Amino acid sequence: MSILVVGSIAYDSVETPFGKRDNALGGSTLYFSSAASLFAPVHVVGVIGDDFNPADIDFLKQRRVNFDGMVEAAGKTFRWGGVYHKNMNMRDTLFTDLNVFETFDPVLPDHYKSLDYLFLANIDPDLQLKVLDQMHKPKAVILDTMNFWISGKKESLTRVIQRTDILIINDEELIEYTGTENFLEGLRHITALGPKVVVIKRGMYGAVLYNAGRFFFAPAYPLPEVKDPTGAGDTFAGGFIGYLAEQDNLDEITLRRALVYGSTTASFTVEQFSMDRLKEIGRFEVDNRWNEFKEMMQF
Amino acid sequence: MSILVVGSIAYDSVETPFGKRDNALGGSTLYFSSAASLFAPVHVVGVIGDDFNPADIDFLKQRRVNFDGMVEAAGKTFRWGGVYHKNMNMRDTLFTDLNVFETFDPVLPDHYKSLDYLFLANIDPDLQLKVLDQMHKPKAVILDTMNFWISGKKESLTRVIQRTDILIINDEELIEYTGTENFLEGLRHITALGPKVVVIKRGMYGAVLYNAGRFFFAPAYPLPEVKDPTGAGDTFAGGFIGYLAEQDNLDEITLRRALVYGSTTASFTVEQFSMDRLKEIGRFEVDNRWNEFKEMMQF
Repeated sequence: MSILVVGSIAYDSVETPFGKRDNALGGSTLYFSSAASLFAPVHVVGVIGDDFNPADIDFLKQRRVNFDGMVEAAGKTFRWGGVYHKNMNMRDTLFTDLNVFETFDPVLPDHYKSLDYLFLANIDPDLQLKVLDQMHKPKAVILDTMNFWISGKKESLTRVIQRTDILIINDEELIEYTGTENFLEGLRHITALGPKVVVIKRGMYGAVLYNAGRFFFAPAYPLPEVKDPTGAGDTFAGGFIGYLAEQDNLDEITLRRALVYGSTTASFTVEQFSMDRLKEIGRFEVDNRWNEFKEMMQF
Repeated sequence: MSILVVGSIAYDSVETPFGKRDNALGGSTLYFSSAASLFAPVHVVGVIGDDFNPADIDFLKQRRVNFDGMVEAAGKTFRWGGVYHKNMNMRDTLFTDLNVFETFDPVLPDHYKSLDYLFLANIDPDLQLKVLDQMHKPKAVILDTMNFWISGKKESLTRVIQRTDILIINDEELIEYTGTENFLEGLRHITALGPKVVVIKRGMYGAVLYNAGRFFFAPAYPLPEVKDPTGAGDTFAGGFIGYLAEQDNLDEITLRRALVYGSTTASFTVEQFSMDRLKEIGRFEVDNRWNEFKEMMQF
């Protein structure tokens, strides 16, 4: 089955204790696509500026990623700059230049509207709603959000959540949105709004799957070196949703396996800057590491 | 097989968002014993003051916990007071009154010296060394420590680590002791000193087992309510070491199962203040929850 993703396309300037990269390919849709396309065809909705180099996404086109929904606007491509702290769990945003993203109004090509798996990456919930309104009847709507929208656009965000099947969130965002520090209470609160499934991302501590009262836990892969955590969350979503779309199934065991695929693809992302590592790998490397996960979780 | 534990016996005054308890039974040896005794006989080395109420440990005596190594000294029992923050991962120590603990000099009864499993709970590493020196040839020395001794008595602590088979530590302590933020590098550093096995405690994020290059991950149990986190670490060690002693085995699969038993006993501890919940439960409740863990980890 095919996936539709809407989100950002960006050039990132990133500094970590391991180095510095200026104007590297970034943005949630591209990170997502580079992982999800290892499993299923991906269709991108987004906007680029006239400074965007088309050759940068050649590797994605070779992986069944369709860019019919990507439009070019006059002006510069979205740019983000940040510095990661020594422990890599914290970062400071240096700048966020929305540029062409500021006036972005997503319009779906007709052949996008009947796709089955819709991933709403972290963008303005009003844009997410515009995409939702154009879709016919997706099998699964998966939403990723960020604290920025929880504090700034809670009402719109809630309308998106009400139409979401699987919500991807982190602990802090769950607390901020629901107003409770109690994890189970927060999950009850958020699932009452609509999502049956909640995925809680915990960075180096892995991820939690909550599906109708049942829990499943996946660790993060113990890496010798994390070079650049940028895109970890989006490629986690890419592996997770990619596998669900490939299997075209949302039952408990498929969701569990998908969660471990999410951890797997995210673990590759952070091994190098930008999408460098994801460009190199194929399904073989992913499956090998997935099996390593299995070994690390059996008792 | 039998276990020897040395550490503190205390009365704690604890405040959490769920309430307040003054002079409640506490201390690492008693928390540890209340969990480990569900699996194997435990022998306690420690000191109490003349204000200690012997009836407080009746429930442990009924569970095969031997107190021949517990001495009474003139003065007051060790007292600790603390307040937990809203999110319960953080606490402020209000006071630490060592009292009779200040002059404590552990002397092992003869029948303690040939016990097989030795747990050195969080106390001054010089006292841990004194206990080690009195032991004949334990099958496994398991060490728990705390940042306090890493900064204050690193040399003595290192001498203990060199004689340790299984080290229980948390992420922050591992970083502080090894001086590296890199998890794998830290593990290499610490295992080079002696311990073959390292257990990393991660509170609400569970625990990691590192055994000769292999990893295993156990989550924390998702509880509806954490009332008082005091003793979680010691009862984690209790379930973990208790199961190892019961099985009298240190192979990979036993260590993995033991880790999940550690998570299990710790999860009961925090459901109530002091040892209240641990007093109520037996092996049946523990095994039931252990099986729930198994269900939450399978894919």
